[in-house]
Amino acid sequence: MTRAFIFDVFGTCVDWRTSVARDVAAALPGVDALAFADAWRGEYQPAMERIRSGNRGYVPLDVLHRENLEIVAKRFDVTPADPDWLTQTWERLDPWPDVAAGLTALKRHGLIAACSNGSIAMMIRLARHGSLPWDTVVGADVARAYKPQPEVYLASARTLGLDPSAVTMVAAHNDDLVAARDAGLGTAFVPRRTEHGADQTTDQAPAADWDIFAEDFLDLAKKAER
Amino acid sequence: MTRAFIFDVFGTCVDWRTSVARDVAAALPGVDALAFADAWRGEYQPAMERIRSGNRGYVPLDVLHRENLEIVAKRFDVTPADPDWLTQTWERLDPWPDVAAGLTALKRHGLIAACSNGSIAMMIRLARHGSLPWDTVVGADVARAYKPQPEVYLASARTLGLDPSAVTMVAAHNDDLVAARDAGLGTAFVPRRTEHGADQTTDQAPAADWDIFAEDFLDLAKKAER
Repeated sequence: MTRAFIFDVFGTCVDWRTSVARDVAAALPGVDALAFADAWRGEYQPAMERIRSGNRGYVPLDVLHRENLEIVAKRFDVTPADPDWLTQTWERLDPWPDVAAGLTALKRHGLIAACSNGSIAMMIRLARHGSLPWDTVVGADVARAYKPQPEVYLASARTLGLDPSAVTMVAAHNDDLVAARDAGLGTAFVPRRTEHGADQTTDQAPAADWDIFAEDFLDLAKKAER
Repeated sequence: MTRAFIFDVFGTCVDWRTSVARDVAAALPGVDALAFADAWRGEYQPAMERIRSGNRGYVPLDVLHRENLEIVAKRFDVTPADPDWLTQTWERLDPWPDVAAGLTALKRHGLIAACSNGSIAMMIRLARHGSLPWDTVVGADVARAYKPQPEVYLASARTLGLDPSAVTMVAAHNDDLVAARDAGLGTAFVPRRTEHGADQTTDQAPAADWDIFAEDFLDLAKKAER
């Protein structure tokens, strides 16, 4: 039985793309803000991969976001006046409209925690920005590793004082759930079909028989009652 | 300037003694429940000291509490029918009356986090029991060390994304604040003069010029505004 729900955050809980683009538009007038947001996010996996592969020790995602901003700014041939403020855009991401209410409802059925590749520092500020009522933050910072490495799911369950089988991972990304299931967790898929924009073709539907499929977090809270 | 307040929990936020005694009385009728609670708590420092000294690797406090229960039950010549339930008494400790309202008020002035020797698993359940609105839990589990070792204060500040000088440690115990100040944190003393019962003589007053002295958490919230 599920005693805790842990959540992917970027894409699953928050609409990072339009939120980042809003701050990019403010900081870098004249730049294609959505293209810049996509390019910045595009550096995310390669930067984590250097750590997953062991070529670099663990550093929190805040550091990678800052480094990736330099890379992308150079590519777009711009210089942000306040790169720290712009990097903190990742702490000012707006949740999808169902998230705050859905999490509040879910919290009656078990523990709820962020299980993101974002740092604890980033997640607590994001939680304040979007009124996300986490019991706590687990994920990359408690494991000092990045999803989809199994230790992130296992360390997160252990940190909550629970067996992996008592924890359900909630994500809008099938690959996150593949890794969570491999680590012994329960799985819940909630699609975010426009995370990458109106033309998105990936993650439109569950790619496997996940334990729960829910249209949004309010639906998830209803299905968690059963 | 203080951007976050981090809190000692046992004694400072919660009245562990009468709460544990209540569950001991329920589980072990006929036993002197307050004496049992004191004896159980008495094994706390020696158990952590074995880890601080390097004679044992880090294990969370839940494990130590369970082991110490065995020791104390033997000494009192009793056998709890459900030792897991009794050990979980440390997740059912009642907060002092000013704590929930004080934390809620303080949360408007900065981040608030538990910085306890208790585990994250223990602290999130305790927070639910007492409606304590932490942004997150730091402390022993994030440092894999026990207060007053400096790495606990330093890892807690780092986890919050802050310089130690931007974090204020709140405690009812002067020795906790000595260690926090040595690590570069701000300090706030809130006395809990009956934590150990009516005859308590220790920690009745600040033992140094701590940055803040407050009578309770509501007073602390007022003083944090300045």
